[in-house]
Amino acid sequence: MKKIINDPNQAVSDMLQGIVAAYPDSVKQLEGTTVVVRKDAPVAGKVAIVSGGGSGHEPAHAGYVGKGMLDAAVCGEVFTSPAPDQVLEAIKATDSGKGVFLVIKNYSGDVMNFEMAMEMAEAEGIQVEKVVVNDDVAVEDSEFTTGRRGIAGTIFVHKIAGAKAEAGGSLEEVKAVAEKVVANVRSMGMALTPCTVPAAGTPSFHLEENEMEIGIGIHGEAGIERKPIASADEIANELMEHVLHDLPYRKGDEVAVMVNGLGATPEMELYIINKKVQEILKETGINVHRAFVGNFMTSLEMAGCSVTLLKMDDELKTLLDAPSSTPAFCF
Amino acid sequence: MKKIINDPNQAVSDMLQGIVAAYPDSVKQLEGTTVVVRKDAPVAGKVAIVSGGGSGHEPAHAGYVGKGMLDAAVCGEVFTSPAPDQVLEAIKATDSGKGVFLVIKNYSGDVMNFEMAMEMAEAEGIQVEKVVVNDDVAVEDSEFTTGRRGIAGTIFVHKIAGAKAEAGGSLEEVKAVAEKVVANVRSMGMALTPCTVPAAGTPSFHLEENEMEIGIGIHGEAGIERKPIASADEIANELMEHVLHDLPYRKGDEVAVMVNGLGATPEMELYIINKKVQEILKETGINVHRAFVGNFMTSLEMAGCSVTLLKMDDELKTLLDAPSSTPAFCF
Repeated sequence: MKKIINDPNQAVSDMLQGIVAAYPDSVKQLEGTTVVVRKDAPVAGKVAIVSGGGSGHEPAHAGYVGKGMLDAAVCGEVFTSPAPDQVLEAIKATDSGKGVFLVIKNYSGDVMNFEMAMEMAEAEGIQVEKVVVNDDVAVEDSEFTTGRRGIAGTIFVHKIAGAKAEAGGSLEEVKAVAEKVVANVRSMGMALTPCTVPAAGTPSFHLEENEMEIGIGIHGEAGIERKPIASADEIANELMEHVLHDLPYRKGDEVAVMVNGLGATPEMELYIINKKVQEILKETGINVHRAFVGNFMTSLEMAGCSVTLLKMDDELKTLLDAPSSTPAFCF
Repeated sequence: MKKIINDPNQAVSDMLQGIVAAYPDSVKQLEGTTVVVRKDAPVAGKVAIVSGGGSGHEPAHAGYVGKGMLDAAVCGEVFTSPAPDQVLEAIKATDSGKGVFLVIKNYSGDVMNFEMAMEMAEAEGIQVEKVVVNDDVAVEDSEFTTGRRGIAGTIFVHKIAGAKAEAGGSLEEVKAVAEKVVANVRSMGMALTPCTVPAAGTPSFHLEENEMEIGIGIHGEAGIERKPIASADEIANELMEHVLHDLPYRKGDEVAVMVNGLGATPEMELYIINKKVQEILKETGINVHRAFVGNFMTSLEMAGCSVTLLKMDDELKTLLDAPSSTPAFCF
């Protein structure tokens, strides 16, 4: 295992201190927790947006804490759901009385623990609503998930729900627009290499030197198929084939596009994928409102990428384009 | 070689098309060249900032083209200096009559080709000035370089010279502030793994499973020492030891910090390095004006990181904090 860490069991704790040390004016760690919150939390008169999940997907989710996106990110151990009491701490620290909205990636552990925290918070008189993001079209039901997994499309939920909350939206309004994003966002990924959870010390799966996996999950869960590495154009074609036909996205639609790196993918390769993705969209007659290319939802040092499409309407465009200011997303 | 590419010899060309396809409203590719320019170039009344070099370091440099940073990035083949005629095209396309300023990383090929383009442009009546960035304290003279190499500190030169130009600075004023950055910026890097140039197909060097290289260059040039992988704290200590004592940075100084990933490093590990870097600065009595953690100057899929310090004064702080809007840097 080649990693720049200290004690593998302290990696998340060290990371959280490193995040707060980098942005001491904008975020803080709730004492005795693994929760990163906006330094000005609770923000008066604003619905709070809380997300989180296992660590190892950085910049998700702590990198999205800030004005216009998340009020708090609850950070579990690597690829491990955070416990309900941690989620509860995030809810209590961010609620200004206007309610808290939870953005949950669809993994059984995350859903269970965030929902349990929701009940605990409601018992304390805090209004809480939630959305479960399940944008990965690759597989129904997999290793850690009933139904479809939540992957990079989650960032669009953060951004758009965050903008709605920042603009003064009520808890119901924030929930409605988040559900609209979930209804219109689809993703799929692929990997060339596995990754290694620090505390485990060995790769979570094996791919041959000439092999790739299509439809892989962000924890290395099985995808659709393993086969010889294809060209970038063929990979883009295959991912887009699945994503486009799922909603489906149609001629005349307008979309936001995210080409996301899984951690160890040179940015050059993400742009090569984007070239073909944009060509396919053009040929299909789909207009691109905006494109995002980079590392947004990673899997430690996995090499690979995912492609996400979000079908836009005027409301979503306005909210996606609203200013935000977070370490990882400042568009 | 596990890469998401088409023809290895078309990787840079494909990438450039993918960049322009991602941000068609803000950048364009100069026809028949490998130059990415601001779409509104030449910007009237503004000194133009032009940088570039071999590709494979993305987001450097095309990701820094935009308001407040670069007017153009000249993109060579992977790890290969761009030819003088390409640099000349960038100069001609961005000059508004107020002159063009070249930011050159110190590699012999880059310096030679950018200087040749400078002479050609001057022969055509265009005012051109330059700065050569040599922030890497690891080694004097190496494989491709006479003197110290230019690495991630270059991003601070882009940002600060770019802000000065955007604020209406003259060519001489832009040059003066760029030279001030170069005089006050120092960096050093390390790697856990090599990277593979697509057209070569095999890694450019070899590290044993338990080995790291301290002081490595961004093309895999030899550093100071190969030795067993140390802890993140020990790595941060060693890099900071070299960087701090070089200028030297002293108690009471104020600095900007960049913890930069070389391409395949999980962001988690960069934050773990940042934790220790910030602790060392605090112990030394050095104040941090601002920190940047992420992939800013990469080496394809090399795993590793670099640490950069820039000693600040009021002018540098104002310019570093000025708004900019580019795909890779929007602070």
